[in-house]
Amino acid sequence: MRLLTRLLEPKTIVHAHCDLPCGVYDPAQARIEAESVKAIAEKYAQNTDPEFRARAIFIKEQRSELVKHHLWVLWTDYFKPPHFEKYPQLHTLVNEATKLAGATGTKGSMDAKVADDLLAKIDEIAEIFWETKKS
Amino acid sequence: MRLLTRLLEPKTIVHAHCDLPCGVYDPAQARIEAESVKAIAEKYAQNTDPEFRARAIFIKEQRSELVKHHLWVLWTDYFKPPHFEKYPQLHTLVNEATKLAGATGTKGSMDAKVADDLLAKIDEIAEIFWETKKS
Amino acid sequence: MRLLTRLLEPKTIVHAHCDLPCGVYDPAQARIEAESVKAIAEKYAQNTDPEFRARAIFIKEQRSELVKHHLWVLWTDYFKPPHFEKYPQLHTLVNEATKLAGATGTKGSMDAKVADDLLAKIDEIAEIFWETKKS
Amino acid sequence: MRLLTRLLEPKTIVHAHCDLPCGVYDPAQARIEAESVKAIAEKYAQNTDPEFRARAIFIKEQRSELVKHHLWVLWTDYFKPPHFEKYPQLHTLVNEATKLAGATGTKGSMDAKVADDLLAKIDEIAEIFWETKKS
Amino acid sequence: MRLLTRLLEPKTIVHAHCDLPCGVYDPAQARIEAESVKAIAEKYAQNTDPEFRARAIFIKEQRSELVKHHLWVLWTDYFKPPHFEKYPQLHTLVNEATKLAGATGTKGSMDAKVADDLLAKIDEIAEIFWETKKS
Amino acid sequence: MRLLTRLLEPKTIVHAHCDLPCGVYDPAQARIEAESVKAIAEKYAQNTDPEFRARAIFIKEQRSELVKHHLWVLWTDYFKPPHFEKYPQLHTLVNEATKLAGATGTKGSMDAKVADDLLAKIDEIAEIFWETKKS
Repeated sequence: MRLLTRLLEPKTIVHAHCDLPCGVYDPAQARIEAESVKAIAEKYAQNTDPEFRARAIFIKEQRSELVKHHLWVLWTDYFKPPHFEKYPQLHTLVNEATKLAGATGTKGSMDAKVADDLLAKIDEIAEIFWETKKS
Repeated sequence: MRLLTRLLEPKTIVHAHCDLPCGVYDPAQARIEAESVKAIAEKYAQNTDPEFRARAIFIKEQRSELVKHHLWVLWTDYFKPPHFEKYPQLHTLVNEATKLAGATGTKGSMDAKVADDLLAKIDEIAEIFWETKKS
Repeated sequence: MRLLTRLLEPKTIVHAHCDLPCGVYDPAQARIEAESVKAIAEKYAQNTDPEFRARAIFIKEQRSELVKHHLWVLWTDYFKPPHFEKYPQLHTLVNEATKLAGATGTKGSMDAKVADDLLAKIDEIAEIFWETKKS
Repeated sequence: MRLLTRLLEPKTIVHAHCDLPCGVYDPAQARIEAESVKAIAEKYAQNTDPEFRARAIFIKEQRSELVKHHLWVLWTDYFKPPHFEKYPQLHTLVNEATKLAGATGTKGSMDAKVADDLLAKIDEIAEIFWETKKS
Repeated sequence: MRLLTRLLEPKTIVHAHCDLPCGVYDPAQARIEAESVKAIAEKYAQNTDPEFRARAIFIKEQRSELVKHHLWVLWTDYFKPPHFEKYPQLHTLVNEATKLAGATGTKGSMDAKVADDLLAKIDEIAEIFWETKKS
Repeated sequence: MRLLTRLLEPKTIVHAHCDLPCGVYDPAQARIEAESVKAIAEKYAQNTDPEFRARAIFIKEQRSELVKHHLWVLWTDYFKPPHFEKYPQLHTLVNEATKLAGATGTKGSMDAKVADDLLAKIDEIAEIFWETKKS
């Protein structure tokens, strides 16, 4: 399903956090980090070596923080007042997504399902993002 | 005026961005960085040396980014759904404040008045923050 | 042309620099930063304000460094000895690309053509990357 | 006791590590991080979950490093030769405080008492700091 | 043996990662971080305290990443095409060294012997580096 | 003169800022960054291109900050109370050196002589450092 969505998305430019502004944004950056978080959770379940697990916890913390950052940048640098008017659920959506990448979400859990919830939230944000790009 | 406000504020604990969670937050951290930004803008106006000005632009960029970060952390890690319900203007307030610390705000301007606008927004957020602490 | 290439690329997983390893890589991350660099160069040409230009130089420095980093990560963490055997030009290609994102490339120049050269090099690396993904 | 002290402190300006110089400093920044360190130590004692504990160790390391940094900045950027003359114990005080936030202090220990010792040292520095502000 | 080598090395200037360019490089920076990694591995073997070990794993991750970075900088910013022509094994050598400082090397292992292998690779690179300095 | 000193220095292990502790320190790290700062100042004098100069100012800021950091680490993590007793000038020496790498020193000046003053201070610290290593 995701492959189909990606093929259909008109993707020209990407990235975030330039704040010049560059005008270049893409929710894929947040999604990519969330995919890493999920991959870490899956490997953690399969590898009980304590040294490996310590590294996994530390690296998952860092990738989760990057998810939060990329989403915050979209929320502040990309989305504008007309967007928030058209999509009144947008503030709450981004707030929930960033909470899902924090201590009460993927930072505090090694459960891959929490990473799935985060990915689902990011996809909701991406859907709105691409609609705004068309208009 | 500000000194009086600070004396009257019940301040026990502070900080941001621990995301353990530590339970330790204070809008003063964002305000402090915004005060630095204002101080830089004022010094910039008084010192036309090109080397000094280049440093000032670069350092203001960094402090502005820290303002954005501290506010984002409050928005995601401190404020909870009941807060957003009780203060329906809170999402917009934080979004405007972080925009005011970005390219369309203090990052993109050496005007001390823009820093004042940012400080005023932060004070509005701080007012809500301290009300939530009392309840 | 690029849109067509992107549609045809089998893209499942992404990201770089997890080094757990996560197994998640994509040259798009380097390309994205290079696109930012190009966008900055274009805006620089259109805006002669000295404060804007100072910010642009500083931000381009940071994005260029990120290009270098993403490419280095692919070169060390993703590509393996069989890849270097199959593509004997690969070492030189990555070395040239990272040089193009450095002081003798996009860091040291505001010419959008230098950014184009960098993007072209990244596309060459991406082509090899996706071939290795198929095998 | 601490609330009273905070109310009585003449606090006008804050922050550290601008090094423009901004002229904006406050020992509260170091204290805030030390309070986080103490909070982490307390939570660590109450939560034996190995994943939580791993995160706590890693985050305490980071907050301790920030304590060291804020104190170093006061020592180098704020305090001047006349201060060191008037307060001959000041060098040793700051040196001891930064050691207390390092490997032989809060970095290497989960004992909340070590964090208390660090907070006490910071308060001694703050006392001298506020005296210098009055003069 | 190493002391003798260090005494005989014509060392005038050092450092890396300025990319202005400064023209100042030395493989000693990578070696220094690798020595730290080895020291951490040795202390890890002697201290079974779980908190100490968690810190050691986290710090070794950081130092290993710095080894990778310093070597990448030499490979991109110092070594030029004539060097790669004269030393056809150089690309592979640096690639292997950076892999030895990553997940399949010192990041993923607490074995001091892996750190020794890394140090040996760095010495091979240093040998070539100093030969290029003489010519 | 400096080459001779370096040849005569008993140098076994190096580094800073591990704070595990690793037990691995060397003032050369601070000196190396100071040499970069000097090199930048010299190139700045020879190249009047405004874009080059903007980059030089920004990069010098970063290298100067690293000088401060390496010296702070020696002062806190390496030097112990017996050292401060034996060398009563040591606190002042390190304080002056870190000030010389800050806003009133190399950060705030493109004069290569200021970098020379900084290098001279670092050499004084190094002299004491190596004496402590012998005892």
